Amino acid sequence: MEATKEKQRLVNGVRVDDLFETIDAIKETPAVAKSKFRATNKWIRGGHNRTTINDFFAAQEEREHKDTFELEADEPQLLLGEDLGPNPVEYLLTGLAACMTTGLVYHAAAKGIELRGVESRLEGDIDLQGFLGISPDVAVGYENIRVHFKIDADISDEQKEELIEMAQKYSPVFNTVLNATPVTVKLDK
Amino acid sequence: MEATKEKQRLVNGVRVDDLFETIDAIKETPAVAKSKFRATNKWIRGGHNRTTINDFFAAQEEREHKDTFELEADEPQLLLGEDLGPNPVEYLLTGLAACMTTGLVYHAAAKGIELRGVESRLEGDIDLQGFLGISPDVAVGYENIRVHFKIDADISDEQKEELIEMAQKYSPVFNTVLNATPVTVKLDK
Repeated sequence: MEATKEKQRLVNGVRVDDLFETIDAIKETPAVAKSKFRATNKWIRGGHNRTTINDFFAAQEEREHKDTFELEADEPQLLLGEDLGPNPVEYLLTGLAACMTTGLVYHAAAKGIELRGVESRLEGDIDLQGFLGISPDVAVGYENIRVHFKIDADISDEQKEELIEMAQKYSPVFNTVLNATPVTVKLDK
Repeated sequence: MEATKEKQRLVNGVRVDDLFETIDAIKETPAVAKSKFRATNKWIRGGHNRTTINDFFAAQEEREHKDTFELEADEPQLLLGEDLGPNPVEYLLTGLAACMTTGLVYHAAAKGIELRGVESRLEGDIDLQGFLGISPDVAVGYENIRVHFKIDADISDEQKEELIEMAQKYSPVFNTVLNATPVTVKLDK
C-alpha cells in the first residue's frame, strides 16, 4: 500500500508493485478495503457554495490529504448565479470522468498495458422542469449521460473496448450513478 | 431568466423575480427547460487527471461559462496517487453537497424564507474490493451516503425539515445518485 520497494515498477505512472501488494493485503484481510470518503459544504450566497475535502478513512485508519482542497460551486447567470465555479451537475460529471479514467488507467497498468493518452468528453441531459418543481412527470436528475473515450496506445480497438468495459465495471462513481444508491439526509438540531 | 428589472428582489442572494420569470417562461414553452451539461477530461499520469468545464446548452442556446474551469483529480498516496487533488468519489460528494444546498437555498428564496447559514457534511462508504476487482459480491460504487444539514434561520425545526425535503426532491445530483441513471460509454475511433 505504501511504497516499500527501492525500485517500483511504474506503468502509466501507477506503482504496480504497490497495487498488487494492496490487492494481496485486502484478500488476506477484507476489512482493509472498507473506506469512508467525506466532504463538508458551506453555503455562501445564492448559488455559490464551497466544499472542503480533507479527511477520509482507509486501510483501517483515519487519514488526511496532503492539502485541504476547496471547491467553489456556483450557477451561471442564466441559472441565477454569479458563475464563480462549475455548477453541481458539472461536478458530478467531473467525478464520473475522473473515476472512469482512473479505473481505466489502473486496470491497464495491472495488465501491463502502457497508455500514451486517455481523453473523454461527457454530456448529460437535464430537464429543468424537475429542479424548478414545474412538472412531477419529468426526471429531476440527469435523464442520461453519454461518455466518449479516446485512447492513445499501441493496442487494438478490441483491447481499447476492453479497457472501456473495465472502466465501467470498476469505477465507483460510474456504479454509484448507474445503480440506485441510498442517500440518507438528516437535520442536525 | 436574464435580469430585466431595475430593482430585483434578492432573497438569499437569489434573484427571485428572475426565478419566477424563468418558471413562467418554461411553463409557457417547456422546451426552454431542456439543458445539456458537459465536461472534458484528460488523463495526466497515474491517478492524476484534469477536467475542463466550459460550454453548456440551456434556454435553447449554446452557452459558455464566464471562465473555463479546470479541476484536478488525483488519488491519495495510499491509493497509489500523488494527492494533487480530491479523488473522483470526493468530487461526487462535492456535486451532491453543492446541488442539495442550491436546491434548498433557491426553494427557500422562492418561498421568501431568509437563511443566515447552511452547512452540510457528507460521508459515504466504499468497499475497495469492488474497485480492485477482488470480489464480485461487493458493490463497486458507494454502498450508501449520509448527509447532515445544519440550517441557521429564524424558522422552526419543522420548517427546516421541509427545506431538507425540498433539497432532496428538487436536487438533480441527489436524484441522479438515488435513482438508477443510464450512462452510455463509447470508444471514439
